Amino acid sequence: MAAIRHALNTRRESDFAAWYQEVISAAEMAEESGVRGCMVIRPWGYGIWERMQRLLDDRIKAAGIANAYFPLFIPLANFTREAEHVEGFAKEMAVVTHHRLIADGAGGLVPDPDAKLEEPLIVRPTSETIIGDAMSRWVQSWRDLPLKLNQWANVVRWEMRTRMFLRTSEFLWQEGHTAHATAEEAREETMRALEMYRAFAEDDVAMPVIAGEKPEHERFPGAVETWSIEAMMQDGKALQAGTSHYLGTNFAQAADIRFQDSEGGQALAHTVSWGMSTRMVGGLIMTHGDDDGLRVPPALAPQQVVILPMLRDKPEDEALVAYCEELRAKIAEQSALGEPVRVLLDTRPGKAAAKRWDYVRKGAPVIIEVGGRDMDNGVVSQLRRDALWNEASGKPAFATPSREEAAAGIGALLEDIQSALFAAAAARRDASIRRDIATMQDLEAFYSSGEKYPGWVEVQWARPTGAALEKVVEQLKALKLTVRNVPMDAAPATRACIFTGEPAVERIFIAKAY
Amino acid sequence: MAAIRHALNTRRESDFAAWYQEVISAAEMAEESGVRGCMVIRPWGYGIWERMQRLLDDRIKAAGIANAYFPLFIPLANFTREAEHVEGFAKEMAVVTHHRLIADGAGGLVPDPDAKLEEPLIVRPTSETIIGDAMSRWVQSWRDLPLKLNQWANVVRWEMRTRMFLRTSEFLWQEGHTAHATAEEAREETMRALEMYRAFAEDDVAMPVIAGEKPEHERFPGAVETWSIEAMMQDGKALQAGTSHYLGTNFAQAADIRFQDSEGGQALAHTVSWGMSTRMVGGLIMTHGDDDGLRVPPALAPQQVVILPMLRDKPEDEALVAYCEELRAKIAEQSALGEPVRVLLDTRPGKAAAKRWDYVRKGAPVIIEVGGRDMDNGVVSQLRRDALWNEASGKPAFATPSREEAAAGIGALLEDIQSALFAAAAARRDASIRRDIATMQDLEAFYSSGEKYPGWVEVQWARPTGAALEKVVEQLKALKLTVRNVPMDAAPATRACIFTGEPAVERIFIAKAY
Repeated sequence: MAAIRHALNTRRESDFAAWYQEVISAAEMAEESGVRGCMVIRPWGYGIWERMQRLLDDRIKAAGIANAYFPLFIPLANFTREAEHVEGFAKEMAVVTHHRLIADGAGGLVPDPDAKLEEPLIVRPTSETIIGDAMSRWVQSWRDLPLKLNQWANVVRWEMRTRMFLRTSEFLWQEGHTAHATAEEAREETMRALEMYRAFAEDDVAMPVIAGEKPEHERFPGAVETWSIEAMMQDGKALQAGTSHYLGTNFAQAADIRFQDSEGGQALAHTVSWGMSTRMVGGLIMTHGDDDGLRVPPALAPQQVVILPMLRDKPEDEALVAYCEELRAKIAEQSALGEPVRVLLDTRPGKAAAKRWDYVRKGAPVIIEVGGRDMDNGVVSQLRRDALWNEASGKPAFATPSREEAAAGIGALLEDIQSALFAAAAARRDASIRRDIATMQDLEAFYSSGEKYPGWVEVQWARPTGAALEKVVEQLKALKLTVRNVPMDAAPATRACIFTGEPAVERIFIAKAY
Repeated sequence: MAAIRHALNTRRESDFAAWYQEVISAAEMAEESGVRGCMVIRPWGYGIWERMQRLLDDRIKAAGIANAYFPLFIPLANFTREAEHVEGFAKEMAVVTHHRLIADGAGGLVPDPDAKLEEPLIVRPTSETIIGDAMSRWVQSWRDLPLKLNQWANVVRWEMRTRMFLRTSEFLWQEGHTAHATAEEAREETMRALEMYRAFAEDDVAMPVIAGEKPEHERFPGAVETWSIEAMMQDGKALQAGTSHYLGTNFAQAADIRFQDSEGGQALAHTVSWGMSTRMVGGLIMTHGDDDGLRVPPALAPQQVVILPMLRDKPEDEALVAYCEELRAKIAEQSALGEPVRVLLDTRPGKAAAKRWDYVRKGAPVIIEVGGRDMDNGVVSQLRRDALWNEASGKPAFATPSREEAAAGIGALLEDIQSALFAAAAARRDASIRRDIATMQDLEAFYSSGEKYPGWVEVQWARPTGAALEKVVEQLKALKLTVRNVPMDAAPATRACIFTGEPAVERIFIAKAY
C-alpha cells in the first residue's frame, strides 16, 4: 500500500470545516461576493443546482403542481398580520425603505429623503403571506380546490454568521404552496411532498435520508406539523435537507382563504408548504466529497464524462482530436439514468494531467484521457471518480478499455457510480447510528468520549410537550445536541423515555446539526 | 358571412390597451399583486415564460455560455464607481437600509434603528458591476478569456407607471456577460447574441423582428454600441424585445478587468452584455393575441393540445374518458418542433363548452372535443386556435378527423400553426411599413392623418450626432415618435437625410414605441 498524494490540502478527518471550504474553492463551485452574506455561485456549482432544479421540477410537474411567480417584495403589513409567523421571521430581514438615490454633493450617492416609502417593503424570507393573498383571490368555491402552486425563487434571511450553501443571507429555493378543502387532503399532500423530497434526495442526490416529523419546538412558525428529511454528513452531523409543513387553517385565517363548500357553507382552506434550497448543494458536498475534492452523482453532474486528449501543440494533435471527437459523439448517443449522456471534449490549451486534476476536484464522474499511444492501440485511459486510487500503487486507477467498449459501457458505468455513491453513503450512515443508548448518562458519555465524528443516536421518548419539552431541549443544548425528527415507519417504542423515565411512545434521532 | 360572438369584450381595433389587459386577465396570465409595481405571474403566464427560458437557455448553452448566479444586492459604491452607468440607472432603484424589524410598541413593526446598514444595498437593476467584480478576480491571463457567463434572475427598476409584462418594477430576465481579449472578438460576440435573439424571436416566439443598431442617444449607459431586435405590435407600435451591448473597455476599466496578454503586457478586457426579459411575454400577447384572447405559438405553449371529453356525470363517461385517454397517449408519442407533444386530457368537473372557451382565451394551439357521438363514429372534433372561426357560419371551425388521423397528424398540424402565426405577423408588419416618405412634412402628415395604428416608417438619414441628433430627437418627440434602429443588411441609402437634407448614409426605422 503506497502513500497517496491527494488533490486537496485539507483532510476531512483533520478539519472538516476547512475541508468543506477547500472543496468549494477547488471545485470552483462558489465564492464570497464581497456583499455581506451573499455568495457568487460559479458555473460548476450553478450547473449542479440547475440539474437539481430540473430533476425536482420534473417531479413537481408530474405531481400536477404548477409553477408561478410572486413578488420579491412583501408589504410590512403582511408580517404584522400573521403574529406567530412574525415571531419566527421578523428578527432579521432586508428592509427596503427608499426607491431612489441622489447625489450627496460630494461625489457619492445617498437614498433620496424625498423618495422614502410610506410603508417599508420586506425582501421575501418566504412567501406564505403573499401567496396566501393570491390564494384568497383565486379560491371561491370547493371547485377551485385543491390549488397547487410552486415557485422557484431567491429569498433573503439576514444572517450574521454565514457559510457557503449552508447558511447565506440570499439563497435560492423552491417553495410549494397548496390549499385544500379538508385537513385530510392537506395532510396527504404534506406527506406526498415529503416523499417527493425523499425520492429526490436518495435517487438523484444519492443521499440517504431519514424522513420523519420534527418535534413541536422545531416546527415552522405557524405550522401544525413540520416534517423533514435528515441526512448524515461525513462528520456525523445532521443536515435538514427539505421540509414539508401542514399549516392547518392558520395561514388561511390570516390571508382569508375561504371557499363555499359543496353544501353552500363557508369554510377555511387547509394549507401546506414545502421547501428545498441551495443548502442541498452543501449536503451533496458533505455527503460525497472526499480528500480529492467533490464527487458529483452522475444524475446531477453538469458533465458526466470529460474527455481529455493529451495535446502536445504538434501536427499529430489533429488526428488525436478527431479520435476523441468520434468517442464523444458515440458517448453522446448513449443514455444513462433515463437521459442522454452529458459528455464534454475539452480541447482548451493546457496539459491533460493538470486538467485531469481540475476535473477530479470538480468531481466529474468519469474522466477519459487519450494519448497518442492509446490512439495507436485503439484504447482509452478511463478513471472512475468514485474509485480514483489504486491503493496498492498509490496511483490513479486507470482502466484501459477499447474505445468502443468505453462508449458502449458508459451508461452502465454511470448508473453503477450513482448506486455506488448512494451505497457508500448509506453504509457510512448506518455504521454511525447508535441504537443501544437508553440513559442520559450514556448519552452524555457517548458525546463526551472525545470521538471526533460520533454520529447519531436513536433513543426513545415519551414525546414531552410544553415545559417538559423545553427542559429536554435545554439538556440537549448543553451537549450541543438537537432532536432531528421522529422517523416514519420506525419500530414501536419498547423502553422508558430517556429523558423522563415514563414509558416511551416513539423513537427519535439525536445529533449535532448544521 | 355571419356575425361572430368573440370570447373577449374588447376589440383590438377599438381600445388596444384595454384589450391587452383583458387578454392577460382572461387567459389567467398575470394580475396585480397589491405590491406597488410588482405582478403575480399565474401558472399559464409563467408556463409560457418557462418555455421561453428553456428554449433560449438551450441556445445559450449551445453557444458555450455557462449559467452562474450573482448577488441580488449590490453595494452602493459599485454605482458611484461607474459614473456614466449611474446616470442611466441611479434615479429609481430599491434601496435596502435596514436588516431587522422590531415591534413599534403599538402592535406594528418598524425597521430597527439599531440595525441600519453602514452602507445601503441596492436591489440589482442589472448586474454589470457585480459581475465585473467577479470577472476581475477570475481573469488573470489571456488564457482565461473569453469568459462567457449568463444569469437568469429577477431585477428591480422602480417604475412610476407600470404595465403588466411590459414595464414592472420587478421583472425576470436573463443577462449575458462576456469578456474578451480584443475589441474584434467582443464585437463578434455582441452580434452573435443579437442573432441568437433574432432566431429565438422568429423561430420560437413566431415574432418577426428587425435586428439593427440603436442610435447613439438610445445606447445602454456606458455602452459603445447597443443593438436591438424590434418587433411590430398589432397597434403598429414598436417593442424593443432584446438588446446586445458592446461595452468596449468602459466597464472593464471601472471593475479593473485586466489580463496579461500573450506578450506579457497588461491589457483591459473588452466586455459585452445582452438581455431578454418577461417583456417578451407582453410582445407575444400583442403579436399573436386576437379578439378571442391569446394565441400561443406551439413552441411556447405549456400545453399544445387540450382534450376535452364532453362529460355528463353519467356512467357512459367512463368509456368516453378511456377513448380520450387512448388519444392522449397516442398524441404524447408524437413529436412537433423537435420535442414530444405536450398534451393535456382535462377531466375536471365542468362543461366541455365552458372549458373550450377557457382554452380559447388561453390560446392553446389545438383543442379537441370528444362527445359520445364522436366516439361512436370513431372521430374527434378538432379546433385550430389560429383559425378559430368559420366566417360563413359565424361558428367555431371544427374539423372532424378520425381519432387515428388526429393523433398521427398532430405534429404536422402544430408545426403548421407555428409557421402560420409567424407568416401572419410578418405579413401584417410588412403591410404596415411605409418606405416612401422622404420629408419631415410627409412624416408629420402621415402620423397626423388620424389613422389609428399607422405603423412604422423607414426613412434615410445622415446619422447626425451630438446637438444635431438631439434636435432630431426633439422633432420626433413632438410627434411621439422614436428612432428604433438602423436595420442590418438594409439597402444602401439613396436619398437626402430626412432631417438635415444632407446626403443620407443609412436607413432607420421610426415608430411609436412601448
